[in-house]
Amino acid sequence: MVGFQEILSIIRQRIEEIPYPEQPHRLYRPIAYLLALKGKKIRPALTLLACNLFKEDINEAVDMALAWEIFHNFTLMHDDVMDKADIRRGQPTVHKKWDENTAILSGDSMLILSYKYLAKSPGHHLPELLDLFSTTAAEICEGQEYDMQFENRLDVTEAEYLNMIRLKTAVMLGACLKSGAILGDADVKDRNLLYDFGLNLGIAFQIQDDILDVYGDPAVFGKKIGGDILCNKKTYLLVTALNTENRQEKDELLRWLKTSTPEEKKIEAVTLLYNKLSVKEKARDKMEDYYQKAIESLNGVNVPDEKKAVLKNLAEELMNRKS
Amino acid sequence: MVGFQEILSIIRQRIEEIPYPEQPHRLYRPIAYLLALKGKKIRPALTLLACNLFKEDINEAVDMALAWEIFHNFTLMHDDVMDKADIRRGQPTVHKKWDENTAILSGDSMLILSYKYLAKSPGHHLPELLDLFSTTAAEICEGQEYDMQFENRLDVTEAEYLNMIRLKTAVMLGACLKSGAILGDADVKDRNLLYDFGLNLGIAFQIQDDILDVYGDPAVFGKKIGGDILCNKKTYLLVTALNTENRQEKDELLRWLKTSTPEEKKIEAVTLLYNKLSVKEKARDKMEDYYQKAIESLNGVNVPDEKKAVLKNLAEELMNRKS
Repeated sequence: MVGFQEILSIIRQRIEEIPYPEQPHRLYRPIAYLLALKGKKIRPALTLLACNLFKEDINEAVDMALAWEIFHNFTLMHDDVMDKADIRRGQPTVHKKWDENTAILSGDSMLILSYKYLAKSPGHHLPELLDLFSTTAAEICEGQEYDMQFENRLDVTEAEYLNMIRLKTAVMLGACLKSGAILGDADVKDRNLLYDFGLNLGIAFQIQDDILDVYGDPAVFGKKIGGDILCNKKTYLLVTALNTENRQEKDELLRWLKTSTPEEKKIEAVTLLYNKLSVKEKARDKMEDYYQKAIESLNGVNVPDEKKAVLKNLAEELMNRKS
Repeated sequence: MVGFQEILSIIRQRIEEIPYPEQPHRLYRPIAYLLALKGKKIRPALTLLACNLFKEDINEAVDMALAWEIFHNFTLMHDDVMDKADIRRGQPTVHKKWDENTAILSGDSMLILSYKYLAKSPGHHLPELLDLFSTTAAEICEGQEYDMQFENRLDVTEAEYLNMIRLKTAVMLGACLKSGAILGDADVKDRNLLYDFGLNLGIAFQIQDDILDVYGDPAVFGKKIGGDILCNKKTYLLVTALNTENRQEKDELLRWLKTSTPEEKKIEAVTLLYNKLSVKEKARDKMEDYYQKAIESLNGVNVPDEKKAVLKNLAEELMNRKS
């Protein structure tokens, strides 16, 4: 088996080696810039780890892994334009460092580049990989669309929220794993179990993200605590709180949603309401449910436990992360 | 052989039948809206006509043809955002009818959708079609990038301009034809000759576009005459005029480029300068050169002349068009 650190270093090296055309540099430099920002590289790692469950030699899966990482960063580049975000991984976003047109067009080139990498995969797997990739990519756009629509709504249900994060975040983790299983020649049952593992892990991961934004440790979180509260972002916490039966707390919450300053006071007040309504505990329970579903799917995959240990450890680490 | 009108009606029908998901409709309605606007449908027609040179049954090429049409309309959706264009084919552009974020995200979905159609092509052709499609798509982004850069430049050379329209417009016509030839199982020589036919025809087509914008017949042109002059668009005419050795005319032209009103006066004055500098004749000569190169490539394709007559007529019609 290939070690996790070795897998990460293969990915980092291959990303550095992407041969961009020299000109027009305004189109290609933003791609290199975004891909060079520090990131967890979880998605391409999942592809290679899944492949490695079934095959010692993971070389044939590296291009597919890069396709996912490039695609993921394409969504970041365009989402940042749509969300008017100024900072990404501690650095200026592409549309801030350059301009919006550059971010739109470089993003388009990046999406095309992701398909170029996918296309380097072995020919007999191409139809299935293409189908998985395009279906997943289309779902991710649907997720972003729902996320944007939720900005203007106060009546988002828990089911709608869970469907949105399934589309926006979770399907990609499932598909990253499944593509690795395809390239490892796994049977259909194992491919789908790994997809379900990633899907449920992805939902748990996003709920964890929502919790950390409010209850994370300021010393290690890396971003400002309460950022989601300040911009009224529909998180699992806010959606749960808004769906409370408790009229008084709901009215108070609605009043705070109409207020934007003073910032610290808003964060404090909304967090207090969350505490009163026990939304942190509800979110933790929901996250745990999905995490358990994920682990059950992984347990069902027909390879020895010691091979699955890396993925299990990774899942556990993601659940216990502080940032 | 399949008649040209029949080919157009196959394309129109299949576009109408695209099964969009019901939700989220804000993502999918703009795609249906743009594809339903009246357009020449030249690109998908080229794919089917090229396939039909080598095969009576063109069914296997229809999905590829749709992929090109969807991709072409994706570029229009994003270009209109970048160019801040309000009107497309006589109707409001997507970002005007909806908003910019919708045009960005629907456009992304559309690019993904084009790959979904490509992927329906016969599996043994997939690697070659994918390579051609992604390479061409990346070049088209490069062309758009140069086109935007030229907005802020007065020193664009003829060679730079021709390279820009090669990338932005011509490579897609070449690739549409080549993909049809691939699906018709044509040999490599014929595939490449058809590519060259489309490439040179595309350059001639764009120069013709530039000429029509100034010298077209207002009664049939369909758009306002002189639109390119008003927004200082770098066309073959303007680039040629700016590269004149004649200092006096050049200075006068530069003065008009700094002026935006009165509109009619600007159009009249710049047209007069074009006339003085014979740029229309120079453009016509250049267009004719590329058209001749295109026809030579078509002549070289190893199928009977009567089969090539449809493509030759289409090329001729495009050169003699009034709008």
